[in-house]
Amino acid sequence: MDEPLTITAAGDLIRRGALAPTQLLSQCLRRIDKYEERVKAWAYLDRDRAWADAERLSAEQEAGHYRGPLHGIPIGVKDIIDVYDLPTGCGSAAWANSYARADATCVARLRQAGAVIVGKTVTTAYAYLDPPVTRNPWDLDRTPGGSSSGSAAAVACGMCLGALATQTGGSTIRPASYCGVFSLKPSRGRISTSGVLPLAPSLDHIGLMANSVRDLAILFQATAGYDPDQLATSRSAVPDCLHAIERAVTAVGTDYSRHRDDVKFRRFFPTASEMRPDTLHPEVVAFMEKVERDLRSLAHANYARVDPVVLPPEFSQVRHRHWQLMAVEAAETHGDRIRRRPDDYPPKIRELIADGLLVSRDEYSTAVQLRGDLSYRLRKTFWPEPLLVPATTSPAPTPETTGDPWCNSPWSFLGLPVVSLPLGWSSDGLPLAIQLVGGDHKEDYLLAWAAWVEEVFRLDNVLKPRPLPL
Amino acid sequence: MDEPLTITAAGDLIRRGALAPTQLLSQCLRRIDKYEERVKAWAYLDRDRAWADAERLSAEQEAGHYRGPLHGIPIGVKDIIDVYDLPTGCGSAAWANSYARADATCVARLRQAGAVIVGKTVTTAYAYLDPPVTRNPWDLDRTPGGSSSGSAAAVACGMCLGALATQTGGSTIRPASYCGVFSLKPSRGRISTSGVLPLAPSLDHIGLMANSVRDLAILFQATAGYDPDQLATSRSAVPDCLHAIERAVTAVGTDYSRHRDDVKFRRFFPTASEMRPDTLHPEVVAFMEKVERDLRSLAHANYARVDPVVLPPEFSQVRHRHWQLMAVEAAETHGDRIRRRPDDYPPKIRELIADGLLVSRDEYSTAVQLRGDLSYRLRKTFWPEPLLVPATTSPAPTPETTGDPWCNSPWSFLGLPVVSLPLGWSSDGLPLAIQLVGGDHKEDYLLAWAAWVEEVFRLDNVLKPRPLPL
Repeated sequence: MDEPLTITAAGDLIRRGALAPTQLLSQCLRRIDKYEERVKAWAYLDRDRAWADAERLSAEQEAGHYRGPLHGIPIGVKDIIDVYDLPTGCGSAAWANSYARADATCVARLRQAGAVIVGKTVTTAYAYLDPPVTRNPWDLDRTPGGSSSGSAAAVACGMCLGALATQTGGSTIRPASYCGVFSLKPSRGRISTSGVLPLAPSLDHIGLMANSVRDLAILFQATAGYDPDQLATSRSAVPDCLHAIERAVTAVGTDYSRHRDDVKFRRFFPTASEMRPDTLHPEVVAFMEKVERDLRSLAHANYARVDPVVLPPEFSQVRHRHWQLMAVEAAETHGDRIRRRPDDYPPKIRELIADGLLVSRDEYSTAVQLRGDLSYRLRKTFWPEPLLVPATTSPAPTPETTGDPWCNSPWSFLGLPVVSLPLGWSSDGLPLAIQLVGGDHKEDYLLAWAAWVEEVFRLDNVLKPRPLPL
Repeated sequence: MDEPLTITAAGDLIRRGALAPTQLLSQCLRRIDKYEERVKAWAYLDRDRAWADAERLSAEQEAGHYRGPLHGIPIGVKDIIDVYDLPTGCGSAAWANSYARADATCVARLRQAGAVIVGKTVTTAYAYLDPPVTRNPWDLDRTPGGSSSGSAAAVACGMCLGALATQTGGSTIRPASYCGVFSLKPSRGRISTSGVLPLAPSLDHIGLMANSVRDLAILFQATAGYDPDQLATSRSAVPDCLHAIERAVTAVGTDYSRHRDDVKFRRFFPTASEMRPDTLHPEVVAFMEKVERDLRSLAHANYARVDPVVLPPEFSQVRHRHWQLMAVEAAETHGDRIRRRPDDYPPKIRELIADGLLVSRDEYSTAVQLRGDLSYRLRKTFWPEPLLVPATTSPAPTPETTGDPWCNSPWSFLGLPVVSLPLGWSSDGLPLAIQLVGGDHKEDYLLAWAAWVEEVFRLDNVLKPRPLPL
């Protein structure tokens, strides 16, 4: 029942030679032995290869060759992302034995940085909304969320210290929040999706999950950046998020704010009315109100302000337009195959594809245009101060559904970076999370604010050490 | 027992509405029904999808939408090349159910041009030298050659009208020649290998097989050219080979040569001594001598000269250096996996990988440097007139081996374009072929000469209509 180990802490022990990658891996494998039967987070495990990699990295460590903060860190990879010579099952029965012939770019980069790939985590079918076999480790009668169900559950149980996920609507932030782990969906184009099953290519993002904001930054630094295999990836420089985090966290509880303009005014925007808060679960409303109160009143945050923001009126169309883009592109991705293999498509993805075939060309163009216009207008609105919104509409519901992505899909649509922090609990002990939205390609600012909030809540003892579930 | 239908002839019928893609496909499927049990050319067939595609293309034809000379042409694809939602088995037991999530670039381009993908043709394991299940349709006790065994056998039997192959050593030219079909290995970088299992990436080429030089040009025009998914592909313009062929063929048997400098002097170089002709099978030597005599004496070729060429002394190292590059890169490609799955590697590829691990860094660098130097020096040597060499060392041997690639590997090493023409027969009725080597990126000249030779031999009744085998 210990607090889950962070990448930051484990990495520090490994750097100092106080922990071997093999020791860390066996700790994770023991947790898998203990929880997996009930949680079902993994589609494929490759203990032999993980062990061989951990041994090699332990030997490197002993020889004084340290690769950096991911050296020897066990990582899970969502099962729509290629890992060399493991299947990429995609939640499909027909593809369950489809071995990848190369690592996806993001996996190759993690491996280069020293990560140990433990296996493939369960995804919903084709990364859409149909419920998976995975269960929420905080309550086995709840969904872990989707579509990155296994990644969230595995990180929550300490089966791995971080995980790769994806998000087209709310597939990273939602499961992470239901399962009580931290997550980051970076700006569109920041992390290459080369080697990843597409759902709706213009909306697909790689997401990251871990147990602290710093951990997210470590995963981000390793995976972000231009990929010659995917010309659509962003060519702009990857900011140094760890440095930005250090600066922000150092400022907490000092008088720094009184002397420096750039940190004086910490402002958070509450749930915007455009997000239709009337459909939020009362527990989420109460949680968000408490977070806002805490931010205003906590000893370490006494200079924080939380002001409302007014979003442009077009914002009310965002969810509908997101759905149109997703449906049309999913139909494009799967239309040919679903005709030949209808049985390999469960109801929700089937419905999405069918709907996508009915969206007119004009409607699609209108959606693309709205996205462009609004992205341009909003690209700096949440920068330097981020927007504060709930990460989910409710605590994790029962497992006939993977939950509602509507707190997340607007930011997938706009391609803006989002981070989620599990800062509270529902009355029946389920995790609740806030979501911060940043300016386009401003992950450094976003993660700095997120780390600041994490630090304040920790210092003021609001964010208590979390036990492991089960 | 008819002569196999060419893409050119079938395409012409389809263009004129005299043949429907569905009729052509059923003709191919009937041949598959008839021969496949004995020949074993196919790893996977997808009759349903091929049929659906042929029906769609027939409907397009009826509606007057003609895609060009590949409209409705049945094509086979070597089983290391990805075809969407068919397995890419690579001759591996473990990968036999590994479905591709996208078409390889060359497949996507063929499909766009109207080709009907019939299925995946048998490859040797990982496209190396271990014998496949496929048999030579001209003699079932002979090898079809390898590694593109199924592609060659399928085209020879008229199971499809053209096929995609690959070549790292001699994997396109050799099987095509053993099976009596025409083949082209273009210049390095001409056709993208994105979506294709690598063996030795710096040596891997896409190859093309069909039943005439014009057919090869049609396949080349559709598949060649820069691929943003593979930055190593050549950015230079794809020449119009069909136009070059028309010009060359029109000149045959006319007085054109007396008035135009550029076609007056048709010069062929015989087997260079550097190719070590002493190891050539006597039947091949006799065949090459006859080809040379015919070129000098045939009525339609009476102005052709065949002069010897002296290659630089470094050329004698080429075969050894090719092997070193291939071994090192194969070890890089497969080294990690063979440790985990030794049983999935048959003896020859296993030996190659083991050897590759023993080649020193210096040796590898020397090989890379020799390739660069020699490629530069030779890049225009075989241009405009090509080098004439035998396509294989012998007629197809018995099936414990796939035959000797040493007539082919120098051109894979140098990245020069090569075309093979089946112009003769051994005493026991096996096909024999010549090989023409062209200047770097000069496929138009190369194919024009090849078409000229084909035309001369046909007009002079040396290249007789070939029956189908079996």
